[in-house]
Amino acid sequence: MTKTVTRFQPLGRGTSTRTGASLLDLAREVDVSVESICGGTGKCGKCRVLVATGEKHLSPINESERAALTAEEVGIGVRLACQARIVAEGDIVIDIPELSRRGHHRLLASGIEPEVELAPAMGKILLRIPPATLSDIRADDDRLLELLHSEAAVTANIAQGVHQLLPKAVREKSWEATVTLFRGEELVRIDPGDTTGNLLGVAVDIGTTKVVAYLVNLITGEIVGTESQPNPQIPFGEDVMSRISYASRNSDGLRKLKEVVVGSVNALIARLCADAGKDPTDILEVVVVGNTAMHHIFFGITPQHLAQAPYAPAVRNSLTVDPGHLGLDIYPFGKVSSLPNIAGFVGADAVAVLIASGLYQDDEIGMMIDIGTNTEIIAGSRERLIACSCASGPAFEGAHIKHGMRAASGAIERIWIDAETHDIHLRTVDDAPARGICGSGIVDAISEMFRCGILTDAGKMRPSDRGDRVRKDADGRNEFILASAAETEAGVEVTITQNDVQEIQLAKAAIFTGASALMRKLGIACSDLKRVYAAGAFGTYVDPTSAITIGMYPDIPPERIKFIGNAAGSGARMALKSTKVRDLADRLSKRVEYVELAMEKNFQAEFAKAMFLPHRDADRFPSVVQQRQA
Amino acid sequence: MTKTVTRFQPLGRGTSTRTGASLLDLAREVDVSVESICGGTGKCGKCRVLVATGEKHLSPINESERAALTAEEVGIGVRLACQARIVAEGDIVIDIPELSRRGHHRLLASGIEPEVELAPAMGKILLRIPPATLSDIRADDDRLLELLHSEAAVTANIAQGVHQLLPKAVREKSWEATVTLFRGEELVRIDPGDTTGNLLGVAVDIGTTKVVAYLVNLITGEIVGTESQPNPQIPFGEDVMSRISYASRNSDGLRKLKEVVVGSVNALIARLCADAGKDPTDILEVVVVGNTAMHHIFFGITPQHLAQAPYAPAVRNSLTVDPGHLGLDIYPFGKVSSLPNIAGFVGADAVAVLIASGLYQDDEIGMMIDIGTNTEIIAGSRERLIACSCASGPAFEGAHIKHGMRAASGAIERIWIDAETHDIHLRTVDDAPARGICGSGIVDAISEMFRCGILTDAGKMRPSDRGDRVRKDADGRNEFILASAAETEAGVEVTITQNDVQEIQLAKAAIFTGASALMRKLGIACSDLKRVYAAGAFGTYVDPTSAITIGMYPDIPPERIKFIGNAAGSGARMALKSTKVRDLADRLSKRVEYVELAMEKNFQAEFAKAMFLPHRDADRFPSVVQQRQA
Repeated sequence: MTKTVTRFQPLGRGTSTRTGASLLDLAREVDVSVESICGGTGKCGKCRVLVATGEKHLSPINESERAALTAEEVGIGVRLACQARIVAEGDIVIDIPELSRRGHHRLLASGIEPEVELAPAMGKILLRIPPATLSDIRADDDRLLELLHSEAAVTANIAQGVHQLLPKAVREKSWEATVTLFRGEELVRIDPGDTTGNLLGVAVDIGTTKVVAYLVNLITGEIVGTESQPNPQIPFGEDVMSRISYASRNSDGLRKLKEVVVGSVNALIARLCADAGKDPTDILEVVVVGNTAMHHIFFGITPQHLAQAPYAPAVRNSLTVDPGHLGLDIYPFGKVSSLPNIAGFVGADAVAVLIASGLYQDDEIGMMIDIGTNTEIIAGSRERLIACSCASGPAFEGAHIKHGMRAASGAIERIWIDAETHDIHLRTVDDAPARGICGSGIVDAISEMFRCGILTDAGKMRPSDRGDRVRKDADGRNEFILASAAETEAGVEVTITQNDVQEIQLAKAAIFTGASALMRKLGIACSDLKRVYAAGAFGTYVDPTSAITIGMYPDIPPERIKFIGNAAGSGARMALKSTKVRDLADRLSKRVEYVELAMEKNFQAEFAKAMFLPHRDADRFPSVVQQRQA
Repeated sequence: MTKTVTRFQPLGRGTSTRTGASLLDLAREVDVSVESICGGTGKCGKCRVLVATGEKHLSPINESERAALTAEEVGIGVRLACQARIVAEGDIVIDIPELSRRGHHRLLASGIEPEVELAPAMGKILLRIPPATLSDIRADDDRLLELLHSEAAVTANIAQGVHQLLPKAVREKSWEATVTLFRGEELVRIDPGDTTGNLLGVAVDIGTTKVVAYLVNLITGEIVGTESQPNPQIPFGEDVMSRISYASRNSDGLRKLKEVVVGSVNALIARLCADAGKDPTDILEVVVVGNTAMHHIFFGITPQHLAQAPYAPAVRNSLTVDPGHLGLDIYPFGKVSSLPNIAGFVGADAVAVLIASGLYQDDEIGMMIDIGTNTEIIAGSRERLIACSCASGPAFEGAHIKHGMRAASGAIERIWIDAETHDIHLRTVDDAPARGICGSGIVDAISEMFRCGILTDAGKMRPSDRGDRVRKDADGRNEFILASAAETEAGVEVTITQNDVQEIQLAKAAIFTGASALMRKLGIACSDLKRVYAAGAFGTYVDPTSAITIGMYPDIPPERIKFIGNAAGSGARMALKSTKVRDLADRLSKRVEYVELAMEKNFQAEFAKAMFLPHRDADRFPSVVQQRQA
C-alpha cells in the first residue's frame, strides 16, 4: 500500500496502488494540487517535491529533472512531481513545499492566524443577585456593583444607557442575570438569566478595494463566518488618493464616503448574522483595521492632510467608540475599536499584518511586504522595526495595463515561456478561457520575457529570434502577444505592451527602493533577510521567483518567503480575541520607526537604478544573474 | 440725622428725620419690609426688631409691647416696630431678625449658596503646538497629547468624536488652540486660537412642579442668568406617584415624560443663552438634580420600582452621560452629570440641599427639612446623618384644600386672628384681592384657629363664642369663614373646612413622624436640635411659629430655623462649580443612612399621635402649651 504524506502544512493522508501514476497524481489524491505550468513536460520546474520515504518505489531521475534541478537539490531527494512515477507498491512520503502548491492561494485567502490565548475585551459574568427587600433596600446599581466587587473582585462602572436596562434585567429571571464587562471595568450589558454561552465579535478589514468581515465566537475562538464585498467607495475614487481628494473637495464628501463604508460593514454583519442564526445585537464588539485613509474616513475624520506634506495622520492611537457614534448596527452599548496607525500611509492594517506575521518577535531579521496601491514594508526583528510606504500604484491590480484585469475568472495568472521555442504556457483563474491578465500573470510575463531575452535589462522589448510574438502596435512600439485571439478559447487577444512593462518597472522599483532603504537603515544586505512575509492577495498569488527575477523582492532563496495571505484580517481577528494583542499593537505602533522615503537622500537615484531588470546594480541579484548566465 | 442700619443681612442704609415715624416706616425707607399682620395694632407681635443704638430717640415701651414681648426680650432691647416711634432726631441702628422680615421670601427664592472654590469639571488650556513638518511627522493626536503631557503634566485621552475636530482646529489659527479637559483627563473639545475666557455651565433643578435652570460663568463663578418654567410633565400627572404610574402603565410613557422634560431643559437653556448672547454649544456641562423619580425619568430609566416595595431606585450613583444620549442641545461632546440619589424618595435634590445647607459639616446636631408632596428630612451632624422621606401629600401646595391654591397673586399667605375679638387679619400675595389660600396661609389658619380655641387639639372645629365665623356646610360639618364674599375685594368667599383641617393634620403628622423617627434614631430630643434648615419654597414661606404651633416642626426656638430657599438649585450650582463638591456628594450619598418609615416599629401609632395639635404627647411641644396657657 502506498501512503502519501504531505509534511509541509499536512492536508491529509491518502493511499494509491496505481503504479504508473506520477507524484502529481498522487498529491491530487490527497487534495493537494501541485503547481505545474509546462503541461507536465518537466520544463518549468515548478513542481518540485521532496521525497522523504520510498525513493526506491519511484522511477529513476530523468534528463528533464537533471536540467531543472540543481545538483544540491538532487542530492537531498528533490524530484519533479510530473516526472517521478510510481514503479512499485510501497509507502511513499513526500514533502510538498509551499512554493510548489497551486492550492496555497485559496488556502491562504483568509490569512494565517497564529494561535491566540482568548482574552477578549468583552467578558461575561453570571450573577445571582440578592433580591431587593425592605431589609435590603439598596439601589439596583449598588446591589450589582457591590456584588461584582465581592464575587469577582471587579470594580466596575456602568456605561451610559445601560442603567436603563438594569431594573428589568435584574428582576426578570428571579435576580439571576449575566453582565458583560468591557475590559473588566465597564459594565456594558446586562441580560436576564444565564447568557454566558453567547459572546460574539466581528473583525473587519476595510481594504481600499474590498471590505471583509469575520464573525468570531469569542467563547471558542472559532470563525463562525466570513463575508466580503467590494468597497462601496470605489465609485467615488478607485484608489486612496482619489478618495482623499473626493473627501476634501466636496463639502459632503467625507460624510458620504463614511456612510457607504459603514453601510457596507452593516450589510456584511447582517449577512454573517443571518447565516449564523444570530441577531446583530448579539455582537458586542467590532475590531476594525484599514489603511490610514480608510481608517480616518470610517471614523468620520478628514483624511485631507494625509495627501499633503508632511502627510501627518490626524490619529495614530487606537480608538474605541460607541456603535451609535458611527451608525453601526450591533449591540448599541457595545464597542467599535480600531488598531492604531503608524503613519499617514502605514495604517492599522499594517499593524495587523505585523502582528499576524510574528515579525515583531523574530530573533532574526526579516521583512513584511504588503503589496497594494500603496505597499507597506516593515523590516527588522524583535530588536528594532522600521516601516515605510511605497507608492507602487495600481498596476498589480491590473489598472493601467492594456489587458489588465482583477484576479477574476479567466485572468491569466501563471505564465511560463519555453526558453528554447518561446512557446507559451498559461494558466488562468478557474482554468476559464483567458480574458485578460492579472497582477501575478503580469509579473510572470515580465519575468519570463526577461529570462528568455525578450526584454533587455532596461525593460526594452526586442523582437524574438524564435517565433513572431513581438509586433509593432499602432504607435510603432513593440507589443508581445501573450495569447492571440486564435489561441484563447474566448477569442480574446492578450498582449503585453512596452507601456505595460514600464508600469511594472515603476511599481517594482518603488517597492524595491523602499525595501532597500529599510535594509540600509538596518545596515543589512538582502542575504541577511532570513524571512520575507508576503501578505495580501497579490503577495500570495505572485510567484516569488518571478518577483525576485524582475527585482521586486530582495534576492533571497525563495523558500524564505512565507505567504501569510490576508494577514490584516488575521491580525484584526487576533486583536478581537485578545486585549493582549491590542496592547501589543499599541506598543508596536509607537515603537515602529517610520521612514518617509521622500525625505531619503538619493531616493530618486535609487529609484532610477531599481527601474532596471532586476536592478542597475545587478550584483544585488546574484541568483538572477546566475540564472541568465546558465 | 437718623441712621437706620440693618445688621442681619444688611440691605442698605437710609436716613430719616421724620419724627413721629414708626420703626416700620424707618425700615421701609431702606427697603426692608417688616412683617406686620395685625394692622399696626401691636397685637400680632410679628414685627419684633432689636434696637442696637438710639433707644433714647424712641417712644417708651407701651402696653401692647409689654403684652407681646417676653421680659427677656424687653431686657435686651427688643421692640415692636409698629409701636416704637421716633421722638427725637439722632442715630438709630436696628437689627431686623430674619423672622420679622416680610421680604425674606423673595430674597431667598434663588437659595442661599455657600461660597465654593471654583474647580469645575471642565477646564481649558491654551496650547502652542509645534507644527507638523517633514522632520516632525507625528500624528495630530500624538502631537497634542505629548504636548499636554510635557507642558501641563496631563495624561489625557481624546473623547469619541473629538478626533474629527483635531486636524482643522490645530491648523486653523497657526497651531494655537485651546483644549477643554473633563476632569483633567478627557479631552472633549479643541478650539482654534485662545478661547480660555469662555467657559459656561448650566445647573438644573428638575422639581416635580417647576424646572429651574441657572447659567453659570465657570471662569468667574457668577450666575449669568436664571430661567424657570412649570414642569411640562404636569399634564401626565400632578404628583410624582401619578407620573410613575403613567410611565409604568403606558408602553411609551417613560419616553414621553423624558422627552418633555428634556425639551423643557432645552428651552430654558435656549432662553438663558439668548439673554446672555451665547450659543448653546458654548455650554460645556449641565449638572442636574431632582428627586429620584424626576432623575430616573430624565435619564430614561424606568421609575416603576420606586412605587413598589421595597422602593429601590435603579440608580444611586452619580451619572455622567453625553448630551446626545439624552437629546440635550449643548456642546455635543460636553457632559451631563447628575448628583447621586440616596434612596427611592430621597433623591439628588436632597443631596444638593444637604450640601447647600452645610448640615453635613455642622458640629452640632441639626435637621434639614425640604417640604413637598414628599418631604425629605435629613438629621444629624458631621458625625452621622440619617434621612427619611415622608408622604406629606400636596396639601401645602393647595391641593385637596377647598379654597386651596398655589402661592400666586391673591393667595392668602398670612393670617392673624385677634384672640379677643376673633377679628381676622389677612395678607395676600402681591397684596392682591384674596382669591384663595396657599400653603403658608393654611398653616397660619390652622395655627391661629387652634391658638384661639376654634380648633380642639384633635382638630375638631367648634363654634366660636366670639363672632359667627363657624357655620355648618351642606353636609352638616363645621366650616370656618376666613373671608366672606363681602370682605374680599374680589367678592370670593374663602373658608377652611373640617376636611381641610384634617388634610393638614395628615400632612404635618407625616412630617413630624419622620422627624421624630430620625431624632429617636439619633437618641436626641427636639431641644437638642441646634438648627433646622427650612428648604424649598414652602419652607421659606411658612411661618415657623405657626409650623411649630400645629406640630409640624419640632418645638425649637424659632430663631434656630434657617431659611435656605431653593437650596436644591444652590447645591446643583455648587456641584457645577466644583468637582470637590461632587466628590463630597458622592461620599455623602453613601454615608447618609436611610430610614424606611414604613419599616419602623410603632409607625402607625406614632403617626396617630402626631395627628393631634400639636401632638398627643403635648409635653413634646412645651412652647405651644405655654402659649395656650398664657
